[in-house]
Amino acid sequence: MVDSKDTITAISTPHGEGGLAVLRISGPDAVRIARKIFQSTGQQTRFENHRVYHGWIKEGNESIDEVVMTLFKAPDSYTGEDVIEISCHGGVFVTRRILEMIINQGARPAEPGEYTQRAFINGRIDLSQAEAVAELIRSQTEASRRVAVYQLEGRLSEKLNTVRKDLIRITSLLEIELDFGEEDVQFANRNEIQNSLFAIKLEIDKLILTYKRGRVCREGIRMVISGRPNVGKSSILNTLVEKERAIVTEIPGTTRDLIEDVLDIEGILFTITDTAGIRDMNNITDPIEKEGIRRSEKALRSSDLVLLVFDNSQPIHEDDESLIQLVMREKKDVIAVINKIDLKSRIEENRLRKRLDGVQFVKVSALNREGIDNLIQTLRNQALSGELPETGELVLTNLRHRDSLIHANESISQAEKSLKENMSQEFIAMDLRSALEYIGEITGQTTPEDVLNYIFSEFCIGK
Amino acid sequence: MVDSKDTITAISTPHGEGGLAVLRISGPDAVRIARKIFQSTGQQTRFENHRVYHGWIKEGNESIDEVVMTLFKAPDSYTGEDVIEISCHGGVFVTRRILEMIINQGARPAEPGEYTQRAFINGRIDLSQAEAVAELIRSQTEASRRVAVYQLEGRLSEKLNTVRKDLIRITSLLEIELDFGEEDVQFANRNEIQNSLFAIKLEIDKLILTYKRGRVCREGIRMVISGRPNVGKSSILNTLVEKERAIVTEIPGTTRDLIEDVLDIEGILFTITDTAGIRDMNNITDPIEKEGIRRSEKALRSSDLVLLVFDNSQPIHEDDESLIQLVMREKKDVIAVINKIDLKSRIEENRLRKRLDGVQFVKVSALNREGIDNLIQTLRNQALSGELPETGELVLTNLRHRDSLIHANESISQAEKSLKENMSQEFIAMDLRSALEYIGEITGQTTPEDVLNYIFSEFCIGK
Repeated sequence: MVDSKDTITAISTPHGEGGLAVLRISGPDAVRIARKIFQSTGQQTRFENHRVYHGWIKEGNESIDEVVMTLFKAPDSYTGEDVIEISCHGGVFVTRRILEMIINQGARPAEPGEYTQRAFINGRIDLSQAEAVAELIRSQTEASRRVAVYQLEGRLSEKLNTVRKDLIRITSLLEIELDFGEEDVQFANRNEIQNSLFAIKLEIDKLILTYKRGRVCREGIRMVISGRPNVGKSSILNTLVEKERAIVTEIPGTTRDLIEDVLDIEGILFTITDTAGIRDMNNITDPIEKEGIRRSEKALRSSDLVLLVFDNSQPIHEDDESLIQLVMREKKDVIAVINKIDLKSRIEENRLRKRLDGVQFVKVSALNREGIDNLIQTLRNQALSGELPETGELVLTNLRHRDSLIHANESISQAEKSLKENMSQEFIAMDLRSALEYIGEITGQTTPEDVLNYIFSEFCIGK
Repeated sequence: MVDSKDTITAISTPHGEGGLAVLRISGPDAVRIARKIFQSTGQQTRFENHRVYHGWIKEGNESIDEVVMTLFKAPDSYTGEDVIEISCHGGVFVTRRILEMIINQGARPAEPGEYTQRAFINGRIDLSQAEAVAELIRSQTEASRRVAVYQLEGRLSEKLNTVRKDLIRITSLLEIELDFGEEDVQFANRNEIQNSLFAIKLEIDKLILTYKRGRVCREGIRMVISGRPNVGKSSILNTLVEKERAIVTEIPGTTRDLIEDVLDIEGILFTITDTAGIRDMNNITDPIEKEGIRRSEKALRSSDLVLLVFDNSQPIHEDDESLIQLVMREKKDVIAVINKIDLKSRIEENRLRKRLDGVQFVKVSALNREGIDNLIQTLRNQALSGELPETGELVLTNLRHRDSLIHANESISQAEKSLKENMSQEFIAMDLRSALEYIGEITGQTTPEDVLNYIFSEFCIGK
């Protein structure tokens, strides 16, 4: 970790031209540096906490820019240190010019995420909140924003602290018994401990189960549109995203590259990939089509959800059959779409439904938009297994958090087992301590240095 | 002009992801809207001027983002109206989400430049200062930043106000005489008026003369590197910008497209275009080379400065001769460069110097960087006619300003002429009023509506 005694600086607003840009200085020298380069219009030299001052950035007698300066005194600042914010004109050159002046006065360029890292080190926020900051900035939909803000508000931390307290209480009881050494006392009722541990495990399991929904909220759904050539995959993509994203012709095999677009359904981001029609490689000589099919199959394998498209106007084809086998083999979540219902039906629908047992079917005409709203509703339900997180519901969104909780529960299970087998308090307490450590990794109390560094290095500069 | 009674809002920071973004609300409803969507951590509901408040953007009970909110009460704000600034997390989605909430509360999306336009309408700044804001944001070099800041500080306005006052004094004297109607009185000594007008014209002329330098500061120099094929134009470009910008081979005609790069020499931006070698079209059959040469000649015509390159190791070629004739005909500023001084000299240098009388010569070897520093020094001197604006020197940078001043001086000259010819005060005063109007166009007192609208429409949104 970099030295937190340094005073650091960075441009905190996005790169580019805008009305204004904001530079931040954080650390023990922030106020001294501000005094050196900022001259307030009112000639103030003592700056009050949480107050803005209009004035000029000056280099000697020369005015560099007209700015507004704000002082956030420690500990009432984002980082918990003295922070100076300079809001200057949003030009790329002039902003960099001021940054260089600040650096010349002794501040060091901030590492990515270093402001948030300092907020964490100084106890302003815990690690899960720090991670929420990055998530919030990256969020592209209402659902991802919402779950990030819940975490930022400290709801996950609160939940985990309750669990931690319960675990600590039990562990302490066991450790007190240990202090009595050979006397073999038992302060704590073993049944009560069993029950408490069971309840704690249940709580943690409930949280773990929210991860699938949380991840959907945060990252959305990777969906591919699959089908044999010319069933209307590109038309469905275009109709869904309501623009001419993919080139549509009547010639089978028009789409060769993977075409990607996004669709926001009630706050959930669907990344939709239109693929080349998949058919039996043995019948193909064109190397471009072969490569296209290879890519289609690869996209299908890495997707969360497959839209399997069939042509209503044609009998089931052997290529349809192979595709069905492929998605079965890959155990994919599937929605079956029978397209071209504007044409006379020739497809053996019952046979198809039997082959795709348990799969939801939607019948559409991409051509005249019939059934598309129904398809969108089905996508939404499928993605969320029927439920969006309620307003206010806490969900896990982070794989790291889920893994730590799984490990914590394994340790608690181990403790339960030892308890049942009447093992010494020592072993039980050790397992519970280990569970506590796993939980502490989420909020940052016991997170290894390299994990911390990795987490903050993923931030943008200036945050 | 749009209605200034509305409350307007926009994202003022550049578009993209960053640590933070700033939204602004300006107008009579700004504070009411802030109260609706912002809940301060300290539960304050009365906000003090120029103070920042930590809190949350709330929609009902739901937290949308953690923010810092600042109130700038009218008239102590950028626009002169009540202004609320919300500094939120710098994510694209969350920032737009808050913008939409503000709009739902009754604010209207701001037009480009509308904040600055309101600052102008409310008399916080004059028009030349408003224009300086846009210049400052666009500035890419120290020189362009500096001239923009001088104008932003109001130095041009001050200068023009002095001139205006002098003109108004004289005009008033003449108009008082007019009030006496037929009596033919002369309060003002005609000689004194002559002298004053002469002095004013001189002042204005001095200002007009700074325009060339001002424009160079603001926009830099468009320079083309010209020469017949294979004299080393691309090597010179690469050596100047210190990277392999253009592909260099020993094959004449390697460069076909115009290749452009920029070089910052002491704060002046040189946009350097490397061109295809120019040679007699009649000897060329390759249509690509012909097109390349056409583009070279076009680039040369629209340039501010031509670097005319010759090959030290070859006698003067007829293509050299035609190029010399071309730049003479086009009356271009030229610097002659004799390249390849690492090779044995075969060029008739004296003949060349005679042909390019008055042109500065620099001898270089792009291959081993010999003479390049000297070339850069020559470029700098040539661009500025030997002088950078002194720190603190006021220069014109804006064609609009220069044209208004030229018109003003023409009106004053007309007044002088009428004075000499003993015309009635009426005519003289009319010419002086017209000069005043031209000057007022620069600072905005008398600028036509459509010009105003055009100026602000060139701003970015959020400024």
